[in-house]
Amino acid sequence: MHWTIYLSGEIHTDWRDQIRAGAEARDLPVTFVSPVTDHPASDAAGDVLGKPDNGFWRDHQSSKVNGIRTKSLIENCDIAIIRFGDQYKQWNAAFDAGYCAALGRPYITLHGEDIVHPLKEVDASAMAWAQSPEQVVDVLEYVTIKA
Amino acid sequence: MHWTIYLSGEIHTDWRDQIRAGAEARDLPVTFVSPVTDHPASDAAGDVLGKPDNGFWRDHQSSKVNGIRTKSLIENCDIAIIRFGDQYKQWNAAFDAGYCAALGRPYITLHGEDIVHPLKEVDASAMAWAQSPEQVVDVLEYVTIKA
Amino acid sequence: MHWTIYLSGEIHTDWRDQIRAGAEARDLPVTFVSPVTDHPASDAAGDVLGKPDNGFWRDHQSSKVNGIRTKSLIENCDIAIIRFGDQYKQWNAAFDAGYCAALGRPYITLHGEDIVHPLKEVDASAMAWAQSPEQVVDVLEYVTIKA
Amino acid sequence: MHWTIYLSGEIHTDWRDQIRAGAEARDLPVTFVSPVTDHPASDAAGDVLGKPDNGFWRDHQSSKVNGIRTKSLIENCDIAIIRFGDQYKQWNAAFDAGYCAALGRPYITLHGEDIVHPLKEVDASAMAWAQSPEQVVDVLEYVTIKA
Amino acid sequence: MHWTIYLSGEIHTDWRDQIRAGAEARDLPVTFVSPVTDHPASDAAGDVLGKPDNGFWRDHQSSKVNGIRTKSLIENCDIAIIRFGDQYKQWNAAFDAGYCAALGRPYITLHGEDIVHPLKEVDASAMAWAQSPEQVVDVLEYVTIKA
Amino acid sequence: MHWTIYLSGEIHTDWRDQIRAGAEARDLPVTFVSPVTDHPASDAAGDVLGKPDNGFWRDHQSSKVNGIRTKSLIENCDIAIIRFGDQYKQWNAAFDAGYCAALGRPYITLHGEDIVHPLKEVDASAMAWAQSPEQVVDVLEYVTIKA
Amino acid sequence: MHWTIYLSGEIHTDWRDQIRAGAEARDLPVTFVSPVTDHPASDAAGDVLGKPDNGFWRDHQSSKVNGIRTKSLIENCDIAIIRFGDQYKQWNAAFDAGYCAALGRPYITLHGEDIVHPLKEVDASAMAWAQSPEQVVDVLEYVTIKA
Amino acid sequence: MHWTIYLSGEIHTDWRDQIRAGAEARDLPVTFVSPVTDHPASDAAGDVLGKPDNGFWRDHQSSKVNGIRTKSLIENCDIAIIRFGDQYKQWNAAFDAGYCAALGRPYITLHGEDIVHPLKEVDASAMAWAQSPEQVVDVLEYVTIKA
Repeated sequence: MHWTIYLSGEIHTDWRDQIRAGAEARDLPVTFVSPVTDHPASDAAGDVLGKPDNGFWRDHQSSKVNGIRTKSLIENCDIAIIRFGDQYKQWNAAFDAGYCAALGRPYITLHGEDIVHPLKEVDASAMAWAQSPEQVVDVLEYVTIKA
Repeated sequence: MHWTIYLSGEIHTDWRDQIRAGAEARDLPVTFVSPVTDHPASDAAGDVLGKPDNGFWRDHQSSKVNGIRTKSLIENCDIAIIRFGDQYKQWNAAFDAGYCAALGRPYITLHGEDIVHPLKEVDASAMAWAQSPEQVVDVLEYVTIKA
Repeated sequence: MHWTIYLSGEIHTDWRDQIRAGAEARDLPVTFVSPVTDHPASDAAGDVLGKPDNGFWRDHQSSKVNGIRTKSLIENCDIAIIRFGDQYKQWNAAFDAGYCAALGRPYITLHGEDIVHPLKEVDASAMAWAQSPEQVVDVLEYVTIKA
Repeated sequence: MHWTIYLSGEIHTDWRDQIRAGAEARDLPVTFVSPVTDHPASDAAGDVLGKPDNGFWRDHQSSKVNGIRTKSLIENCDIAIIRFGDQYKQWNAAFDAGYCAALGRPYITLHGEDIVHPLKEVDASAMAWAQSPEQVVDVLEYVTIKA
Repeated sequence: MHWTIYLSGEIHTDWRDQIRAGAEARDLPVTFVSPVTDHPASDAAGDVLGKPDNGFWRDHQSSKVNGIRTKSLIENCDIAIIRFGDQYKQWNAAFDAGYCAALGRPYITLHGEDIVHPLKEVDASAMAWAQSPEQVVDVLEYVTIKA
Repeated sequence: MHWTIYLSGEIHTDWRDQIRAGAEARDLPVTFVSPVTDHPASDAAGDVLGKPDNGFWRDHQSSKVNGIRTKSLIENCDIAIIRFGDQYKQWNAAFDAGYCAALGRPYITLHGEDIVHPLKEVDASAMAWAQSPEQVVDVLEYVTIKA
Repeated sequence: MHWTIYLSGEIHTDWRDQIRAGAEARDLPVTFVSPVTDHPASDAAGDVLGKPDNGFWRDHQSSKVNGIRTKSLIENCDIAIIRFGDQYKQWNAAFDAGYCAALGRPYITLHGEDIVHPLKEVDASAMAWAQSPEQVVDVLEYVTIKA
Repeated sequence: MHWTIYLSGEIHTDWRDQIRAGAEARDLPVTFVSPVTDHPASDAAGDVLGKPDNGFWRDHQSSKVNGIRTKSLIENCDIAIIRFGDQYKQWNAAFDAGYCAALGRPYITLHGEDIVHPLKEVDASAMAWAQSPEQVVDVLEYVTIKA
């Protein structure tokens, strides 16, 4: 089985690159997919359709365009990794976790110990909580190729 | 049709009471349900099963007990109202929104204009964004009894 | 079994009243539900949340509020009656038909013979095509109480 | 991920060709599928099984044969583009939109500004509204290959 | 729990009456539902909509009207009893069995030993095979009220 | 799109070969699958597990082994062709039709005009009724490659 | 909300009575349902249909009759309590747990600490692990009536 | 069709190897997948995330990591083989059987005659009961390549 892994959440650190590099180094049978991680491009995703003056509707339009991508990727993935960093609200990451939970798509959270308490509902539906990209790679290795 | 409304999110202001009172005043055919909103009780929900020393596992156990309730209520509701206040992480509210979205359960967000941007993905899957409990009651009245 | 019947489509003639009256006269075990049929109210359904300047977004907001109601009613009905009149685009009626078809909710179309050809895809997924409200009542009587 | 795009609706202009050409020019990882767009052939799709004298049943038989194709293509696509032109009833396009909505299949509408109001329910469940084939290609590019 | 029992199949003997009487005598918490068992009425179910000249389309129209009823009853039942007599093709009964099997709705077949072999696929997906209405009542008693 | 076609029903004439040959001659993008059509082998499918003395249980065991195959093939097919000949009960074919109907898998029936009436419920849920293998091939050609 | 609780597993101790009594004492809004707990009656559930000589088939027939009941009760419950005692194989209890997990029905396990390790997969999908009936009642009270 | 077969259950005998070898010898179109069968590695699957002091939580964490794998493999398989040996509790095997049953994934049990009675509920939902790996291979050959 080849596995598709969706990398959701924080876009301001290089955690995705670390996981990709780790998986490549161990030759895991995985393909990684992710939302658009270029922040300005993501905010402007819908502008090509005509940029609304009103901030709410501009965000709305762009978020729906982004949703075409993220919704499809989540529904087609085998595992999601959901990353919470130490800044920003990151409600979209928690939203993705809830979406995965309802679909029965297994996900692993990746976050520091300091935010364990506010993330308790998100972690309660997760299959694992990792604190580092390396731990994520270890779990992926076990899950995908351990004989 | 009688409607069941799930009230998710913030537990530190009286928005639930305002919505209940408004709906009662207009005699709407609705029943409101909600998670346990007593914060210390919620954190201790699993302690009766034996309180784990480790904070992560204590949270985990309590969150799963809370999840028995919230998961059933969401799956049995007709509409969810999801409230984001101006404090705390509130990842559980965003998680509930994602859960509703994946199940196709319609939800209305309730939050101030200042957090429109970080909530754009949550709002993009919502059926409406309200800024006050009274607006929520107005929408509920329209949806449930407008002839 | 008590049956819930959703009455979708045209709002400019009294076909709903005729069906309700006919069903009542024969004492059928049915409850009728319908979208809001007050046209101006329907167009303004979302205005209470703040009326967007832009026509598209005003329509968008109102349609989503209406969708909370119609989506729930369709998913909870046993049979839908979908009416096409001789005026207007009535794309919402065809949309409801497609929604019913995908959910496996049986529906009956109600329209004149002159629009049989453009409605062929909608009729192809219907369980019956009626040309008058009285025929609809006849079918409902057969379906719900014929011994 | 390779994406399958279903092109539904109007068959009297070359919008499908424009989208195909645009996607090819940008080398997008997409495959386009569509209903039979040869109008007389579509109307006669069932005649090989014996052509009914009655117009309703001839349409019925042909529409069901067409439905074998369109239903399978919609259920197997990742995104649908649903085009409304300025002529004809086009109820089949609105039907497809409702079908997509109920299945949770994301769709983009493509139509002029003049029919925004009658399409408001169809647009309310869409992920985006485009006014030109080029905008559709822009969105597909963003969704499928934006890094 | 109150149980709804769908009685499918043969309409030329009084097996339905025997089961109803037996269940009533033992005061079982069950409600029985069934297709229209008046053969001529069933064949003419769609004639009110205009009787097609062609036999195939007349049958088609009537069968779809009957399908509104039978499809809803099967989807809403808890258990189906599917009876095969010693005459006629009874393909509709086998069709109902396949429909139940795909939905995961448990069903009990009721037929003589002489047709065990041709019914083997139908019986293989059944939860039980009974040879008499009394056995069916015995099973219903066990299933619904045995302490 | 490549299409998988399940060929269900009668095993005593060469209709499967005719359809395969016709599709090959026209180079259709289809793969045909079917139940085991060797009658004695099918009846003995479970005997390798120990042949029960009792005829009912022998049939039961074999039918379930056959069911592993047929159930998987139906769930993985895009279209089913369901053939009724002029002999035998063929309840398994009607069972497959009901199974397809409940799953939303489109099917085409193939049978003579003389059994239109007893097959009316089976035909009512079909997407088409063909009277010859050549008609089936015509429909498959239209559905799968008509531009 | 009124809650239906399915009590699965061990039939040789009075744990069901303890939970029922505890819930009644606290006036919880719950209804308890359970499989037939009379062991000889359960083993003979299918004998009324003709008792097979072969032990495997007798068990098979009885288990399927029991399955009509248990499958319906599990699918209609809100919460399952799954009890493992210190004797017997109790594979049916683990089977019920897997069934609940796949359906997304929340369940609570009830067992002693000595069998934590062999039950780890069953507990991993549970929402809570209780060691006494009283703990189960405590959790039910919290879940169903805590304000 | 190429078939994916999930091999669940006992890890202390070489039954998996026997089935793999038999299938290879007969050149069956099958791919076998299985849980991690290295017992100590399986128990330690979650330790890389931090090994909990408490035995219950260590087991919990490891079982959930194992669950990422097993849950995905079961949902993606076409057939499961579920083996019960003569030692240990093997509740995970029964859990997998229940999980398959609820998903409608066909499974074959593999166990000796001595445990027929305690496995009766597990066998009642199985498509076949085999007593030897060779019988399993015979059934797989019949199901996958018998013409």
